Amino acid sequence: MAKEKQQEFVQHLTPRDEDFSQWYTDVVLKCDLMDYTPVRGCMAIKPYGYGIWELMQQEMDARFKATGHKNVSMPMLIPESLLLKEADHVEGFAPEVAWVTQGGGEELTERLAIRPTSETIFCTMYAKWAQSWRDLPMKYNQWCSVLRWEKSTRPFLRTAEFLWQEGHTIHATPEEAQQETLAMLDVYREFCENVLAIPVYSGQKSDKEKFAGARATYSVEAMMQDGKALQTGTSHNFGTNFSEPFQIQFLDKDGALKYAHETSWGTSTRMIGAVIMTHGDERGLKLPPRIAPIQVVIVPIAAHKGGVLEACAEIAGGLKAAGIRVEVDDRDTYSAGYKFNDWEMKGVPLRLEVGPRDLEARQVTAVRRDSFEKAPLALDGLPQRIQALLAEVQRSLYEIALAFQQAHTAVARDMRELAAQVNGGYAKAMWCGERACEDAIKEQLGATSRNMPFDQTPVGDACVCCGKKADIVMYFAKAY
Amino acid sequence: MAKEKQQEFVQHLTPRDEDFSQWYTDVVLKCDLMDYTPVRGCMAIKPYGYGIWELMQQEMDARFKATGHKNVSMPMLIPESLLLKEADHVEGFAPEVAWVTQGGGEELTERLAIRPTSETIFCTMYAKWAQSWRDLPMKYNQWCSVLRWEKSTRPFLRTAEFLWQEGHTIHATPEEAQQETLAMLDVYREFCENVLAIPVYSGQKSDKEKFAGARATYSVEAMMQDGKALQTGTSHNFGTNFSEPFQIQFLDKDGALKYAHETSWGTSTRMIGAVIMTHGDERGLKLPPRIAPIQVVIVPIAAHKGGVLEACAEIAGGLKAAGIRVEVDDRDTYSAGYKFNDWEMKGVPLRLEVGPRDLEARQVTAVRRDSFEKAPLALDGLPQRIQALLAEVQRSLYEIALAFQQAHTAVARDMRELAAQVNGGYAKAMWCGERACEDAIKEQLGATSRNMPFDQTPVGDACVCCGKKADIVMYFAKAY
Repeated sequence: MAKEKQQEFVQHLTPRDEDFSQWYTDVVLKCDLMDYTPVRGCMAIKPYGYGIWELMQQEMDARFKATGHKNVSMPMLIPESLLLKEADHVEGFAPEVAWVTQGGGEELTERLAIRPTSETIFCTMYAKWAQSWRDLPMKYNQWCSVLRWEKSTRPFLRTAEFLWQEGHTIHATPEEAQQETLAMLDVYREFCENVLAIPVYSGQKSDKEKFAGARATYSVEAMMQDGKALQTGTSHNFGTNFSEPFQIQFLDKDGALKYAHETSWGTSTRMIGAVIMTHGDERGLKLPPRIAPIQVVIVPIAAHKGGVLEACAEIAGGLKAAGIRVEVDDRDTYSAGYKFNDWEMKGVPLRLEVGPRDLEARQVTAVRRDSFEKAPLALDGLPQRIQALLAEVQRSLYEIALAFQQAHTAVARDMRELAAQVNGGYAKAMWCGERACEDAIKEQLGATSRNMPFDQTPVGDACVCCGKKADIVMYFAKAY
Repeated sequence: MAKEKQQEFVQHLTPRDEDFSQWYTDVVLKCDLMDYTPVRGCMAIKPYGYGIWELMQQEMDARFKATGHKNVSMPMLIPESLLLKEADHVEGFAPEVAWVTQGGGEELTERLAIRPTSETIFCTMYAKWAQSWRDLPMKYNQWCSVLRWEKSTRPFLRTAEFLWQEGHTIHATPEEAQQETLAMLDVYREFCENVLAIPVYSGQKSDKEKFAGARATYSVEAMMQDGKALQTGTSHNFGTNFSEPFQIQFLDKDGALKYAHETSWGTSTRMIGAVIMTHGDERGLKLPPRIAPIQVVIVPIAAHKGGVLEACAEIAGGLKAAGIRVEVDDRDTYSAGYKFNDWEMKGVPLRLEVGPRDLEARQVTAVRRDSFEKAPLALDGLPQRIQALLAEVQRSLYEIALAFQQAHTAVARDMRELAAQVNGGYAKAMWCGERACEDAIKEQLGATSRNMPFDQTPVGDACVCCGKKADIVMYFAKAY
């Protein structure tokens, strides 16, 4: 009976190797991460999905604060005149903007954009707030949502409205701004690796792929299980590109009036998509313990037997007291088998089975979601054992993802090799630096330049596309 | 010299009794809580103001979760057709809505409202999510910003865009919905009293003052130092007012299809305004320790003397380790006197002065912001002493506010007494229940009914306005 239910249940997810994209959509919906809404391209993030985002936020926010950043809140609306001030920026974002044209029953004299990003409003305020070198640096961040009128959308990966954080900083010198840009990129790298268990390639974007208005854009690029790239974070150095039109000037120590040097950096709910497509499997989601809203689920076995439910509650209490996010699944309308599958699908890192025989032996049976390894754990000192096991799951998820990334990255020396490599992985290739070659690669192979790694040790001397002399090492991949 | 600076500095704030409203604006701006922006009625919340909000959020979010609520994220845009579904609701909010009419370079076929509140979108999703009694209750909350096209705005108290939380829940029975409505009202009361150190009157709104679309609205009402009311939170019972037009139906245990019973409840950045106007004084802000971004500031005395700055850093380290939010003001461009005033203005609950003589005596000098009491504290066991002192400041702020509230609340038996009482306080009065009397009081005295306390022990038998028989006890006050 439980067996039958189990079978039926697993069949609900489209197999990954049959249709990766449909598998993704199945996971997102069936795990109750989000739902579609009647609002074009906008999603409702459900409690389980939002719980993941909250944990990501906590981890990132702590890192931002530890590196001297403070949170603020800026208006969601941006007058059109502000958006127009920086030419490249408006060119990049204007086509995607949603405009407020009526308010309080009247037509507005100036259209207001719902922020697609907040450089222009931060710049306006920074121009007001920065007077002297003593006021610098200003290192602010905000958690909010932004809106971009995307033509086609996919849950978490590309939605019209999405939740994100955007850091905006101004500095007295170009060196400080560059240092900030790279420091925050590295915060993102470390966060992806240690919290999301996702290895990333850090590097600089090409001119073609950089942010509208930036002098230099850096990114961290993850690899999904279909070999495609997903950019999980970006960090931009604007130099004085914005501070000049916005007149962000300060009186320096030497008495001269100077333009501030600016950066911005962001990550978003896209990262939830990256987690799904990096770690998931046939049975569904696999959550790294550090961002799992439920780290441990306790499933009572023969729950009707005396003492079982009480023992589950007691064990849960002990784990909770040790800071472990735990839940007891005491639903009496489902079989234990159904529950196993349900929580496996939802990616809970560790399941504890607690039955009369376990209790007699003063133990529980622990089952890892990542490896399905099953082992008894003594009740004595259980919280410590669980902590260790969760750390082990976290480490293991990262290592498997790292091995996958390494196995699916290879050098490509010409277009034939590049075509083969980007069909399910990243290519590391030499590039001459010409936009024409990037365009050709995009057009012929559907792949884009991802970023230039900081380690520029050559892997050849000829451009992968045109064959001319090349001295830039670039990652190419198809991308989300 | 320090003395001169101090004098000059204090003069920057308009005296409270001269112009309370200007004093408020001065505090808000000079304490760096917020700034005006080029966006009509929208403010930029600066780090110090946002820091207060973050602490409020943490405290409230923990309470929501402890009472079984989960966070979600809904779209910020609401199609006009959804907003129109509940007649009272649209009548209440439509005049204040900002409309998106263009997106992605095209005119939209249907206008999209920027959410003024999210009942309609929650209802739309609940109709999809609730199928069976097993799915109920659904108890969700979201932290976001909303937008209402207010005609005149004031920092924190009334702004076009503001940050808030909105809880929305659906239940199987009217009893459960009513229980939820009152339980969340009580969470707000307890939060105001224990975290904000603000006493409030809890009770039910009149029909005139209730939320657009609600069957019953409850509020917590605080009293500002000018005797005016500020509503710090509301909780609504909608009954099936929304679930009928939105078709939120579930199959009950008895096999019948039933409409769900719904509630919503909210608090906002308005509460920051309430904190300022409840506790502030001539010197500026006075923050309750539980929401103070900086609880303790350490000011080095004769900082140039050997060991002083090192001792300050060590003391700060010890306090930080004990979970106290502490900062060392080691700016070398300001005198100690200037710093004292600066941090007093910013409302930091406790100042520690650390000079060579203090260190010799193995002590620091602690100065309370609330009472200006000055006392030496031994370095041994300092964190515990500080914790105790902060708790004492928190308690004392509440008691002073409570005494003020009590002293400025009195029974009014007729319009003459009512006029006198609402000129700087709350009136407790009998009311016949007629809208006409509320209208007359509003028109003649500029006061509104605030709420009906749960304790309805009569304070007379004739309506304060019309003199007819009355059996409702109502608080009246002028309000923000």
